[in-house]
Amino acid sequence: MTTDMWVNETLYPSWGQRFLVKRELARVRSEFQDIVIFESHEHGRVMLLDGVVQITEGDEFVYQEMLTHVPLLAHGSAANVLIIGAGDGGVLRRVLQHRNVTRAVMVEIDGEVIRLAKEFLPGIAGDAWVDPRAHVIVGDGIDYVRRATDASFDVIIVDSTDPIGVGEVLFTDEFYENCARILTVGGLVVNQCGVPFMQHDELHDTSIRRARFIPHVGAYVAAVPTYVGGYMTLGFAAKQPGLDAVPIETIRARATAAGIDGLTRYWTPQIHVGAFHLPPYIAQHLPGAI
Amino acid sequence: MTTDMWVNETLYPSWGQRFLVKRELARVRSEFQDIVIFESHEHGRVMLLDGVVQITEGDEFVYQEMLTHVPLLAHGSAANVLIIGAGDGGVLRRVLQHRNVTRAVMVEIDGEVIRLAKEFLPGIAGDAWVDPRAHVIVGDGIDYVRRATDASFDVIIVDSTDPIGVGEVLFTDEFYENCARILTVGGLVVNQCGVPFMQHDELHDTSIRRARFIPHVGAYVAAVPTYVGGYMTLGFAAKQPGLDAVPIETIRARATAAGIDGLTRYWTPQIHVGAFHLPPYIAQHLPGAI
Repeated sequence: MTTDMWVNETLYPSWGQRFLVKRELARVRSEFQDIVIFESHEHGRVMLLDGVVQITEGDEFVYQEMLTHVPLLAHGSAANVLIIGAGDGGVLRRVLQHRNVTRAVMVEIDGEVIRLAKEFLPGIAGDAWVDPRAHVIVGDGIDYVRRATDASFDVIIVDSTDPIGVGEVLFTDEFYENCARILTVGGLVVNQCGVPFMQHDELHDTSIRRARFIPHVGAYVAAVPTYVGGYMTLGFAAKQPGLDAVPIETIRARATAAGIDGLTRYWTPQIHVGAFHLPPYIAQHLPGAI
Repeated sequence: MTTDMWVNETLYPSWGQRFLVKRELARVRSEFQDIVIFESHEHGRVMLLDGVVQITEGDEFVYQEMLTHVPLLAHGSAANVLIIGAGDGGVLRRVLQHRNVTRAVMVEIDGEVIRLAKEFLPGIAGDAWVDPRAHVIVGDGIDYVRRATDASFDVIIVDSTDPIGVGEVLFTDEFYENCARILTVGGLVVNQCGVPFMQHDELHDTSIRRARFIPHVGAYVAAVPTYVGGYMTLGFAAKQPGLDAVPIETIRARATAAGIDGLTRYWTPQIHVGAFHLPPYIAQHLPGAI
């Protein structure tokens, strides 16, 4: 890929997005995947893993805010948060915006993603890497949840690739069983579930799997500009019922208490509450109501 | 374009979507624009106008439902509806699903779009073309609203291209002034306002223009899979305040009375109400609250 070449996303075989590349910044074959970072014309810097867009500077706020603020505010008093994946540090930064968080453990399997994000996408994580509450581990998320102490996390955020390649193990029975074990009694897990207009099996199959271990399973939506195909869904699985339907006044008060007022460009209390109301074309792929 | 070639959307200069073409069905240079219809692999048939995706069989329901059901149910007793553009007939079909509609006038400038949609996209309009309440006019929407009788329409739906090329006149002062004149006292107009992540000036500039003539101006969102770039906004301008905030129970009752229960795959009462709550990154481009 050289200057002023088009790069085509290869996620779907016969439809997708393309970017005109202003300048290629990195191209690395890590132990786990191909990593490419380039400067685009309209989205800032863009990172691809195995040819699939993971993040752009221009629209990362949509995905990161919804993947972070929704579970933390649905929980209401999350102090210990586990992040699996998310090597760019954007989720970590948002988790640490919440005052009541005392410990954020991030487990990313690919140290090269972290290294390249620090070098080429420093604004995504900001100062999160050096926050004393942050514990960044380069390691296998599957292995981490297997060894972690019972009931040690209030919220688990799984920011993985799709269930192909390196991310596949993060959608298995074993992974969810261990998540259930290490979650506190009021705990919940969220994870990215793809774009159901294109990948509806992903939402359906992984929701069924989550429900085996964490009973109150649902999903919420976010319109992410560069995860093309309409709404992306974020899977939501809680040990207790009702966390998908916390009243808006409660969500608003929790956001204020957490200190995130004015920090968001996509998330609002109204959008939080509304995101759980799925269009029928998406809802039909869920195994059942929460 | 031949079989198994990629077609690149040309809407934005350095980012966009592409489709692998299974078979080209039509390629016409009309008096107004280039019209291409092809069979895709994942979205059914696709229509492009001047290189920009207008409709795909796969996801047309999102845009059409939101462009139609939201204004008609926000109004509550719309009997006379004017549709400008929308030559594929999909909006006309949804308007006619409402039992209380007695007359739907559709004014499409390009007869070739209607002819090709009837031939190659017959499922989009279904039987709408022969409904006795439908009055389909091949003509200039600007001219139609100039000549129409005062206060003759409850809802005006403007399904135009972006404000470039043939659609540009549908975003002018003269057009909105005439819309205001021919709307009933409780009337409103909706129109597509582009994808603000990419085209935020479109929402901002056209909202200011609408507000000069129709005072209660706002917008709502829809996540349309093939209008790539996150949420698309639909402009909303009403003569009376509050039509953007009709209680959900009222919307639900109106939908049942209108006869659209069970006919939608994207629209629901919850999504209707939620769509008016804009993410801050979009809301900042509106001239003011409704």
